[in-house]
Formats: sequence, C-alpha cells, structure tokens
Amino acid sequence: MSLKLGVIGAGAIGKEHIRRCTQVLQGATVVAVSDINVESARAAVALPGVQAEIYTDGHDVIQSSDVDAILVTSWDPTHEEYTLAAIAAGKPVFCEKPLAMSAEGCRRIVDAEMKAGRRLVQVGFMRPYDEGYLALKKVIDDGDIGAPLMLHCAHRNQSVGENYTTDMAITNTLIHELDVLRWLLNDDYRSVQVRFPRSTSHTHPRLRDPQIVSFETRKGILIDVEVFVNCQYGYDIQCEVVGETGIARLPEPSAIQMRKSANLSTAILTDWKDRFIKAYDVELQAFINDVKAGQLQGPSAWDGYAASVAADACLQAQESSEPVAVTLPECPAFYQR
Amino acid sequence: MSLKLGVIGAGAIGKEHIRRCTQVLQGATVVAVSDINVESARAAVALPGVQAEIYTDGHDVIQSSDVDAILVTSWDPTHEEYTLAAIAAGKPVFCEKPLAMSAEGCRRIVDAEMKAGRRLVQVGFMRPYDEGYLALKKVIDDGDIGAPLMLHCAHRNQSVGENYTTDMAITNTLIHELDVLRWLLNDDYRSVQVRFPRSTSHTHPRLRDPQIVSFETRKGILIDVEVFVNCQYGYDIQCEVVGETGIARLPEPSAIQMRKSANLSTAILTDWKDRFIKAYDVELQAFINDVKAGQLQGPSAWDGYAASVAADACLQAQESSEPVAVTLPECPAFYQR
Amino acid sequence: MSLKLGVIGAGAIGKEHIRRCTQVLQGATVVAVSDINVESARAAVALPGVQAEIYTDGHDVIQSSDVDAILVTSWDPTHEEYTLAAIAAGKPVFCEKPLAMSAEGCRRIVDAEMKAGRRLVQVGFMRPYDEGYLALKKVIDDGDIGAPLMLHCAHRNQSVGENYTTDMAITNTLIHELDVLRWLLNDDYRSVQVRFPRSTSHTHPRLRDPQIVSFETRKGILIDVEVFVNCQYGYDIQCEVVGETGIARLPEPSAIQMRKSANLSTAILTDWKDRFIKAYDVELQAFINDVKAGQLQGPSAWDGYAASVAADACLQAQESSEPVAVTLPECPAFYQR
Amino acid sequence: MSLKLGVIGAGAIGKEHIRRCTQVLQGATVVAVSDINVESARAAVALPGVQAEIYTDGHDVIQSSDVDAILVTSWDPTHEEYTLAAIAAGKPVFCEKPLAMSAEGCRRIVDAEMKAGRRLVQVGFMRPYDEGYLALKKVIDDGDIGAPLMLHCAHRNQSVGENYTTDMAITNTLIHELDVLRWLLNDDYRSVQVRFPRSTSHTHPRLRDPQIVSFETRKGILIDVEVFVNCQYGYDIQCEVVGETGIARLPEPSAIQMRKSANLSTAILTDWKDRFIKAYDVELQAFINDVKAGQLQGPSAWDGYAASVAADACLQAQESSEPVAVTLPECPAFYQR
Repeated sequence: MSLKLGVIGAGAIGKEHIRRCTQVLQGATVVAVSDINVESARAAVALPGVQAEIYTDGHDVIQSSDVDAILVTSWDPTHEEYTLAAIAAGKPVFCEKPLAMSAEGCRRIVDAEMKAGRRLVQVGFMRPYDEGYLALKKVIDDGDIGAPLMLHCAHRNQSVGENYTTDMAITNTLIHELDVLRWLLNDDYRSVQVRFPRSTSHTHPRLRDPQIVSFETRKGILIDVEVFVNCQYGYDIQCEVVGETGIARLPEPSAIQMRKSANLSTAILTDWKDRFIKAYDVELQAFINDVKAGQLQGPSAWDGYAASVAADACLQAQESSEPVAVTLPECPAFYQR
Repeated sequence: MSLKLGVIGAGAIGKEHIRRCTQVLQGATVVAVSDINVESARAAVALPGVQAEIYTDGHDVIQSSDVDAILVTSWDPTHEEYTLAAIAAGKPVFCEKPLAMSAEGCRRIVDAEMKAGRRLVQVGFMRPYDEGYLALKKVIDDGDIGAPLMLHCAHRNQSVGENYTTDMAITNTLIHELDVLRWLLNDDYRSVQVRFPRSTSHTHPRLRDPQIVSFETRKGILIDVEVFVNCQYGYDIQCEVVGETGIARLPEPSAIQMRKSANLSTAILTDWKDRFIKAYDVELQAFINDVKAGQLQGPSAWDGYAASVAADACLQAQESSEPVAVTLPECPAFYQR
Repeated sequence: MSLKLGVIGAGAIGKEHIRRCTQVLQGATVVAVSDINVESARAAVALPGVQAEIYTDGHDVIQSSDVDAILVTSWDPTHEEYTLAAIAAGKPVFCEKPLAMSAEGCRRIVDAEMKAGRRLVQVGFMRPYDEGYLALKKVIDDGDIGAPLMLHCAHRNQSVGENYTTDMAITNTLIHELDVLRWLLNDDYRSVQVRFPRSTSHTHPRLRDPQIVSFETRKGILIDVEVFVNCQYGYDIQCEVVGETGIARLPEPSAIQMRKSANLSTAILTDWKDRFIKAYDVELQAFINDVKAGQLQGPSAWDGYAASVAADACLQAQESSEPVAVTLPECPAFYQR
Repeated sequence: MSLKLGVIGAGAIGKEHIRRCTQVLQGATVVAVSDINVESARAAVALPGVQAEIYTDGHDVIQSSDVDAILVTSWDPTHEEYTLAAIAAGKPVFCEKPLAMSAEGCRRIVDAEMKAGRRLVQVGFMRPYDEGYLALKKVIDDGDIGAPLMLHCAHRNQSVGENYTTDMAITNTLIHELDVLRWLLNDDYRSVQVRFPRSTSHTHPRLRDPQIVSFETRKGILIDVEVFVNCQYGYDIQCEVVGETGIARLPEPSAIQMRKSANLSTAILTDWKDRFIKAYDVELQAFINDVKAGQLQGPSAWDGYAASVAADACLQAQESSEPVAVTLPECPAFYQR
C-alpha cells in the first residue's frame, strides 16, 4: 500500500528528498530515479534503504507503470516540462519551486491541471508547513489580534556568494515570503515597491543589499519585507503581524538560554536547513498522505503562478522605485480553498 | 523488513503507541495486541492502518513467532513479569515506566538481562529524547559552562486529582527527573532530602504540595527540584544548570510572541503531552531502529533500576526530613555507556 | 547659587515642570510664574515647596531681574514670541515643543539666536535623555553593529480622542521620532513617503490610523516608522537599528516576569508618562546644569527647526503618496556638535 | 530649609554619599565631615559643590549645633558607638550596614532607640528602594500570584579576592537578601540550613564557593538562595517568588537587545554599583525627606538587628550542615509597620 514515487533529478535537493522519503517519512517508497547525470542517480539510489530503478529519461519515470506519483527536483528550466507531462499522464506531481521559469509557464500548468479536472500538482513551498507559521496563522484566524493591518517581515541570510545578484533576492529569497504571506493572510498582492538603502560593505558589485520590498494587498494590508542576504550575524526569519487589537510575532527558534561572559543569550541559527528541515518533512509527508487520500491540499499550481506573477512585479519594481501593480487574475473556483 | 511488534496492554498509552508505530514512525508494524480487556484490544486494532491479531494473553504475544519485539504498556504491576518473559524469549522489549514495582523487581530484570548476555530491555523514559534536554546536554558536554556545580529544576503541573497522593509526586512525577538528570550529568545520586513549605490551598488533605527534593550527587553537584503539581498556571518543566563559567537553561517551548491587553506574552503549555509528544516519537523510533541494528542504546534496565532506587530514597526522605543515602551499587560494565 | 527660573504657562506641563524643579531636581528655584489664567498660576504656586511670584504677563517674567532663565510651557502659538523675547533679553530659555508653529517661525528663532552669538535656546525634546536611546546610540557609535543601514520603528498609543486628526500623527506623535532619529544617527532626512494601510475599526472618520512614514536619510539609511495611535494594547515605542554586522533594539521597559494563567508575560505600559518620566527629569536637570555651566548642549533651536521642516514634508507626503523631498539647509557651524 | 548633614567617615562609601547629597539629591547639605584620616575628609570636602567643615572626631560632628542629622559611613567596628551617640543626642542617623558587629550590638541600639521614644535610626539596606524589588513586592501584596510558598534566589558576583572567606558570603553578600527577603515577604526566618556543592575551581582555599542557604520562614515559606561569588559571568541578582497561582520574577536590568555573531543577547552587568546605584539615591533621598517630615520609615534598627540574628544563624549553619534555628524575639510594637 506504499505510494510508489518516481524522482526526476537527483541533485542536492532530489537526493535529500529520496533520503527523506526512505528514512523519515511513512507510506511511500522511491521506486524510480532519473538524472541527466547518471552518477547522481546512482549515488542517490545507493543511500541506505533505497531500492529504486535508475532511468536515463525523466519522461520514462513518468510513464513507468511502477510509478504512482512524481517528484520533480530537476534543473529549474525543466520543471514546467515534467510537471506538464505528469499532468498529462494523470499522475500527482510534487514540483520543487519554481514551478516554471515564468508566470506564463506557471499559467500553462494551471490551465493544463484545470483541464485535467482535478488537482495533480503541489509546489514545493514548505513554509506553510512550518510550526511557527502555522501557529501565527491560527492566531490570526482565531481573531486574537483583530483584523491584520500591517506586516513587518525580514528575511536575512548570513552571506551569499559572488554569483548571487540583485534579482535573486526576489526569485530565490523573497519567493518564500511571496508564497507564505498570501497563505498567512488569505489575501493577494495589489502592488509592490522596492527601496534600496545604501548597500552594506559586505556585498559585491552585482548585488544591492539589503532591500526593502513593500506590498499593499487587496484587503489594504501593508507588508514590508526586509531582504538582507549578507547580514553577517545569522539566518533569521522574522514576521510580525500588527492587527487591530494586538501584535503577533513568529517564534524565535527554540534554543538554550545561556548566561556567560557578561551576556544573557540564545543562539541564532546560521543555516536555513536547520530552520526549516522539519517543514520539509511535514510538507512531503502531507503530499504522500494527500495523494493516497486522493485530495491534494498543499500549495497549488495557482499558488506557484501567483508567486511568479508577484515576483515579476517585484523585479520590475527593483528597476522603477515606483509602486508597480501586481496583476493576478481572480483565483478560479477550481483552486479556491 | 518491517519490525513486527507485539503490544501488551492497549489502554491509553498502549493505544497511543500503536497509533504512533502505525501512523507516524517508520520501519515497524504492530502485528499482535493483547489486553486483559478485549474491548480495549479491539479498539486499538481498529485504528486506521492497523492490521494486528488480538491475543488474550500477553505471554502468547511474546511467544508468537510472528512477533520480533515487544512493547509492554500493560498495568504497572505486570511490567516486571512480561519484561522477564520477553528476556527469556530473547526478544527486545520496550517497557513503559515503571520497569517494576520495586527496586528489587528492577534488579531481577537487570540480573536476567545480564545473564542473557545482551541488551534486550529499554525503559520508557522519553526525556533524553527531548530536543531541549539534548541541547542542554550538548552545552554541558562541550564544556560551554564549565563543570556543573548546581541544578535548579522545577516540575509543575496545573493540577491533579484527589487520588494523587504525596508519594506520587515522587513515583509518578519526579521519576522523570530521577532518570533524566542522571543522564544529563552522567552522574548518580548520593543522598536526597525532601522539604515541604506550607502547602498550597489548591491541594487536598492527602497531598502535601509543593515539595522541594534536593540531591547531592557522587560528583558533589547539588540538585534542587521543586515539584508542584497544583501550580494552577500551566505545565512547566524547568532545568537550569549552573556551571563554573556560565549557566545554561532548558528552552521554553516555542510560542508566538503576543502584544495584547497591556501584556507582552507567550503561551505556557497546560498539557504534558504537548510538551513531550515529539520525544515519544523519537524515543520509539530509536527503539525500532536500534532493535533492527541489533544494539539497544536507550534508557536501560539499569537506568530503570537506578531511578527506582532513587525513588525509594525519596519516599524515605519524605518521612524523615533528614538527608537519606541513595545506595545504588556501582554500574556493571555491561551497562556502561 | 540656585538658578532662578521663570515659568511662562502653568497648564499641565508647566505645573509638572514647576513640581519637578521644586521637588525632584537640584540647583534651581522657580521664582516667577505667569499664565493667562491666573487660577492656573495660583494652583502651580501652591504646590508644596514652591515660593514664586505670580505675573500676569509672560514678558514681565522674562524682563524680571529676579529671573535667570525661562521655561516656556505656554499655549503652542505663543512659544515663538516668548522664545524670541528671551533671546532678546539674553536669557537662556527652555521651550517646550513645538518651538514655533511653522518652520519659518523656527527659522526666525534660529536667526535671532545666531545673531545673539551664543546658544540660549533648548527645545523640549526629551528622548535623547532617555536611558534606552542613550544606550542604543552608544551601541551605534561604538561600531558594535557596523554602519546603520535601516531602522524599523514604531510609535503606538493605546487610543486617542475624537479631536486627534490624521495630521496630528505627525505634529504631535511622530515629532518625537523626527527629533530623536536625527540625533541617534547623526544624520538628516532627504525624503519622506507616507503610506496608509486600511484603517483600524477603532479609529474615527477624521483619523486615518495607522500610517507608515518612511524616510531616506542623507547617508542613505532607510527608516520606517509605524505610527498607530489606537493600537489598543498599550503605549509602545520600538526602535530597531539594522547595521552591517548586527542589529540593536531599544530595551523593553523593565517589568516583572510573570507565569500565570497559562502565560509567560511582562506588562506593557499604557501611559506615555511612565515611559519617559525619567527622561523629563534628566532633560530639565541638564538644562539647569548647562545654564549654570554657561554652555547649552541639549536639543537646539536648529533641532527644533529641522524637526519642523521634516514635519512639514511629512504632512505634504500624507497628501501625495509619493516621496516628498525634505529641504533642510546645511547646519550652520554655530549649531554643529 | 535644607537639612544639614554631618558625615562620619569619608572613605569610599562616605565620599560617595557626600557627592550624592551634594550633586544628586534634594533638600540636604553636607555641613560637617570627619574621618580618622584627615586627608580623606579633605578629599571629600574638595568635591564640587561641597562646603563643609572638617572635624577630627566623629563625636564632635554629632554634637555640632550646625548638624541636624548624621550619616555613619565610618569603619564598621565604630558604627554602633556613633549610632548610639546620635541617638543620645536626639539626632536622626543613617548608619551604613552593618549596624553593629554583633546581634547584641544591634540590640543595644534597638533598646536605646526605644528608650528615646521615637525612630532615629535608618540602616543602609538599599534593596527595598530598588525599583525591581518594589515592583515584585507590589505583585505579591496585590495578591497577583496568591500566597507565596517558595523563593528561588541567587546572588552571584563575577569574582572576589583572596581575602574573601566563606563566612563573608554571609556577612558581606547574603546580608542583602537577609534584609530584603524579610521585607519582601513581611515575614521572619525560623531556621536556616547551608549546603555546599563541590567548589568551583575558580575559588581559593579559604573560600567554599558556591553555597546554597535555605530558610524556612515563620509562615512556612521555603527560601533557597544560591550564593556564588566567583561565577565568572557577571553580577547577577535573581529572585523568583512561587505563589499559589503564579510566579513572579525580579526583572533583568534593562539592556539593548542585540543580534550579532549568531547570538541574540542582552548584556549582563558586571559591577554591583551599576545594578543598585539608583536605589542608593532613592534610599538616601527618602532618609532626607523622612527626617524633614519627622517620621523615619526606612529599614530600622530592628531590621538591622533581625538581619544580624539571621546572619549569626547562617554562620552556625555553615558549620553544622543541619538546620539551625533563627531565634529572633517578637518585633516590638515600636517597630511594627
């Protein structure tokens, strides 16, 4: 009764998901793995407990009668192609972000899925599975702080390499907030503005860092997200929701309280994996459970599309310094939750 | 390759472990369940995903050739009997605390296991699997606060019922500290003293509450544990280790920070299950993994015996108000870790 | 050797300063008090320990040979007139904010003081005397967080009355940040933008609440200040400085930590006086000491002018939704510190 | 109308009080200073603003018709003599701790003051004037945590010199808790026990450090105070009151919150003066005000006596390891507050 998974792409994240499905999660077995680099596929299949067939072509994984559901963890530009193929084959597919390289690509997936008549796609946005965000959403939904009016957020990384450029602050970093804040507020973005303070001396010529990305939502909520990827001090995700009667803030990661050397302190994480590793487990377990229950409930192709539309507007806003409209069509009934 | 588990006792904790093994953990299947009340066994077997045979006698579960390992979650006075039977059958056994009703009973299990020549018994002490305690132990073991000198601990429950008596503060409540503090410090108790302040008005005639239990360890560390089971405000486990160069404190459970009604606050848990549910998962997964790897590493029969010896001394100390010696023999090489 | 003070205006703040100078501070005596309402003057003079002559005209207070220095705590529209008169009389003057009703009025005071050739004016901005802001400035100035890049601030009041309108969020509330942030950063504002989320249901038709006021400074620092004067939960002043290597945050007011009713909490203040009462003491004691030492060092007429110029730009920005330039001339050498 | 103070003893604390009365406090003038070392007296009188006559004999200060009230800040063994002389002269006297070198000495002062028929003596215990303790007392007195049952306290110093011996942990360090906890709880000690864990390697042969001093009060409250004077990490005063319905804890000193180098931290003080400097100001201002109002209300000779009786019992308990009775007579009506 185990769900038979085919994994397309056995790089870092693919291998990690294969390990997760085999050693941590319940109810699924990786039975097929492909990678353009067959060595990567072999290394993944050699993980303890894995017994999977190696394929040279991702499409063969999709078509294999051994395979019930697909994980797309391949090179970003191939995500759309494999996801569309999985839809065509009528097989549930978990596609790592980005769902496609453009909003149009995401839209094609949305259209294909709607035509297929049932939800087959989950996008790999894991933050809605994080305990902290879940607790924050509960506070909001329970009305504990009244209607939300403003969000003050921060996404900070200790440092990034020379190949990380200004636009990647949107497409690689802010993309998580683009998804999770829509979900948190059950709302969509109406416009976005990007402001740049003077850059930190710890950045490099092709990266303006930090930046503040500000949204107005359809409900009239103002959201500010500080993106600071060379903050030096750690990996730090902050989200504070100001409501009509109170303020709720994402918990700090649990840590030992120390009194030492004239300081009262708790450690700040430095690796994003430590912050969200459990959310990855929960996310993929939910996909497995939902596929078996016949009803996907996680981040949808529409969510991937909405994030992509918002990201495009952010990129424009990086150029203009003026507010830029975010023009997302109304969510089809098919995707409403 | 799934480990086939037989569960003896399908009451609250037994049923919960059956659910856990079936729906949460990896690598094990519950194949046999017994309970003196067959209805309980039926209810447990009716849980989603469970496919197990019902036995009327726990000994039949142990003897069944279908069963690889045993979980003893039956009525406390039967723990010793079933654990000894599992040892005799050469099957690994996870026994919920208490391991036996007396130190002598624990000792019989220790002797039987040593005679069997390999570790077959794990006791259900879950705190060493709690992330907070693991982090605290790492801080100590890394030397971050120097040699530990004192521990200030508290074990507080919101309230208890009329059937909870003074001695149960030791046998049902403090028993967790008795185990985890030995493990945390890699040390044993030398003596114990119990002091009673005036009792809270929220207790009843058969329960003196709170009480302060103080230990001196063999290394000369002083430990104070406040046990307060009608503290009204929540379920709260505190542990502060004062070392030569600093102090480390168990993390508060992660919680949303709220600003509301003139208060900056985080919620305190009220149910012990919320505090330790993950530790139960990790504990039992470790048992499953260790059985499969042929090497039990969790809390041993010796640990169960040591906790029982310490508990007996605490009960004496409740009567005497003087320090009472804790007379645990040296740990046999068989159990040294 | 006590400094003889003349106080013009014996309303709430005037009376409070008279009490402060008489009962709390050192080295000054209130010898003259005027108010357009002679009853107010009488009530102030009747405070324990006060022995002052009552004048009907503020100008007589200024001219009195008994009076060494002036406190202007009269009706706002009269501040400029009395301050100019004190300058003309060559007497040091402490003028409550606002220094004048317009930037032009402030400028006239600046010009008069420069013509007088020595600093005679201190404006009643008390936040630079607050321990928290002083500690925050020290952290910045010591380089502990590297060069400041962004500030995230909030100024929240529990609630305001029906007579409080949208512009007053700038002139009565934000005015404190307009002063203290210049001082904190040793910088000036280059432009300002105001954004309005949907308003809280706890406001009234003539007040859009909350609002976010965003500055860019000459050094390129981005500052966001949330002004929320019906936040319901308390009086809360937040200031977080994001630097190149770390982040420093204004301390929360000291409060008892409570564990009660399933909450771990500290009280939030509800009255602004409790938050800044000590800063008022320190501020006025500094004025007294500096007058006696012949060298005013507190917030100057230029600081009052700069805050007024910034406030005017904020008011424009409330109308425009676009960034508005803040056009403050270069600070004359006379005022540089 | 300034209160004319005579100061006997111009060493460190004397000089500091002279500075305080002259430069910080209101309503008093130091008019007379004596010291056995005339150079010390001269240095104190040379402080800015001081205009006082120098006496060679403390008794002449007491007898001087210029002097309204006395501060005794001389060598400890002379406190009793000067305090008794001040009582005999009918002059209010603020005596630094210890009031006398023995409980009997304190008793003689108590008897002399009662015979004089009015309160003339205040002892220099400053903690009841600390904002944190005042707030904690208010929480208790308001019934916010129900009746107090247990106190968990700590008094930690970074390090002490070679001349600091085991008994000084009582007479110089714990003495502050001995006073403030009686006041906090409005209670007296019934018995005391001292326990020693292994000592820190950071101590020296004549000092067992740390130690835990445990009291039972007359009301049946259990108090544990950890005294650790070589804790290395800072100066740290902790006090947690466990009541029937909740727990209240002394605030941490206000400090900037920092995110830096993978730590979220606030500074811990290292110098006790920084912790209690304001309490010293408030304490002495209260003495001045109370003398002028004709009604001393601060820590009394009885409080000094009670602390001395408790300290004697602690010293005995250091030797015995058994609980030792604290035999304080009932408080005379004369001293009841």
